[in-house]
Amino acid sequence: MILIAERINGMFSDVRQAVAEKNKKIIQDLAKKQTDAGAGYLDVNVGTAAADQQAAMQWLVETIQQTCSTPLCLDSQKPGVIAAGLKVANTDPGILLNSSPLNRRTDEEILDKYIEMAKNAGPKAGIIALAMDKNGVPQDTDTRVAIAAEIVSKAIEVGFDTQRLFIDPIVLPVKVPNAQTQPANVFAAMDQIRILAEPAPHITVGLSNISQGAAERSLINSVFLAMAVSHGMDSAIADVFDEKLMNILATAEMLMNKQIYSDSFLKAYTSMNK
Amino acid sequence: MILIAERINGMFSDVRQAVAEKNKKIIQDLAKKQTDAGAGYLDVNVGTAAADQQAAMQWLVETIQQTCSTPLCLDSQKPGVIAAGLKVANTDPGILLNSSPLNRRTDEEILDKYIEMAKNAGPKAGIIALAMDKNGVPQDTDTRVAIAAEIVSKAIEVGFDTQRLFIDPIVLPVKVPNAQTQPANVFAAMDQIRILAEPAPHITVGLSNISQGAAERSLINSVFLAMAVSHGMDSAIADVFDEKLMNILATAEMLMNKQIYSDSFLKAYTSMNK
Repeated sequence: MILIAERINGMFSDVRQAVAEKNKKIIQDLAKKQTDAGAGYLDVNVGTAAADQQAAMQWLVETIQQTCSTPLCLDSQKPGVIAAGLKVANTDPGILLNSSPLNRRTDEEILDKYIEMAKNAGPKAGIIALAMDKNGVPQDTDTRVAIAAEIVSKAIEVGFDTQRLFIDPIVLPVKVPNAQTQPANVFAAMDQIRILAEPAPHITVGLSNISQGAAERSLINSVFLAMAVSHGMDSAIADVFDEKLMNILATAEMLMNKQIYSDSFLKAYTSMNK
Repeated sequence: MILIAERINGMFSDVRQAVAEKNKKIIQDLAKKQTDAGAGYLDVNVGTAAADQQAAMQWLVETIQQTCSTPLCLDSQKPGVIAAGLKVANTDPGILLNSSPLNRRTDEEILDKYIEMAKNAGPKAGIIALAMDKNGVPQDTDTRVAIAAEIVSKAIEVGFDTQRLFIDPIVLPVKVPNAQTQPANVFAAMDQIRILAEPAPHITVGLSNISQGAAERSLINSVFLAMAVSHGMDSAIADVFDEKLMNILATAEMLMNKQIYSDSFLKAYTSMNK
């Protein structure tokens, strides 16, 4: 499981404030603690409140890199903000560009830009591509898979290794009216996305979305995660500080034979990811 | 989710002793408490230690029925023990006969006997049929599905409603050498078993088997259960006293849109099953 730690995000008030006040300690603590908790990547999202998002992204990247070398996942819907981060990012340990829809309502071919930036960022750079297009987020399985297939085709067309693609079939908050039919559609889409190419693209989601605004957030995130692992999901942007979630993940990976069973499989999993 | 409570089983020492000493209170307490905890059926298994298994089955059935009317799931590999239980069981609220392989090493057509007994036990009687045959428990997906298809064919052939079939693809303890590949095979088999007939047969497992002898039993049972629910499993023989397991089940059913989301969905689920 490629775990992308979600906490360095301007939607959290402590991060928003740290960005506004250039408080390095808060950011660096989050970077170190998330790495210790098992993060394979650190998501970096300046949020929408930052006055100058490009400058804020660069400050965050530089601040994190002063304290640890965990690969980063630059997170913005704006190619300019990603590009600004890339200018100062160390891409040697790997980097992810997060996230690009196939295209936008304006018919702008946005995915091309993200792939191009990733190609220029070296052989270990990947992108997170959202299974949405100019019509927005699909409400069914088939449209999700059709968009994912288009993403895969486009990558192959421009010579971008499908193993550098992280396809996100997009989960919606289960609390939103009519959204409760979506988890089953997402799992059915995962079953098909994992066989779209050889080698298979990665499958990821923004896990905490599923429980946005809901009661029992950790439980909902955990159960969705366990289910998704059994449908081939091999990455997630998640709260690595949630110990119950991490234990359920370790158990899910053990049951799917991704980690050998031993009586101490929970501890082994956490240290394996360090 | 059709929950079959596992606790009245002679493999537990308190039940074994209660059967030996004819101690009704222990059995009746288990029957009531499991019903309160959400059991739809009470499994009744005399275990292998009982001197006269047929007499022990009858005593258990009568003892339980003196205190509650929860449907029973008569559990024995011996048709004679099931038949003895049926003689004294009230089948009006429903009954399950658990469990029959397709046939045995001797080529004895054992499934026929269980179906015949269920037909004679009234319209609400079902059977749990194991996806195993004279070669034992299958180690792959295709053999599990092939046996399940044979079970379904046989039921249709003799006019036994496929909705009265509970097919068990059989889970093995994950701790057993080489068994760690089996959960993925079982989930893939479930994906296919649920579309073998219209109306679909039920899918069930002996959930606690997966964690036999392992550390973190509740966690392993819970994660397997969540995964299986996302692959169409709609029944399980399980420990209904495990509150964490029950909360994960409620969340799994909510995510698969079997229960409506509300901020109190956990409480709603438990009371729904009462």
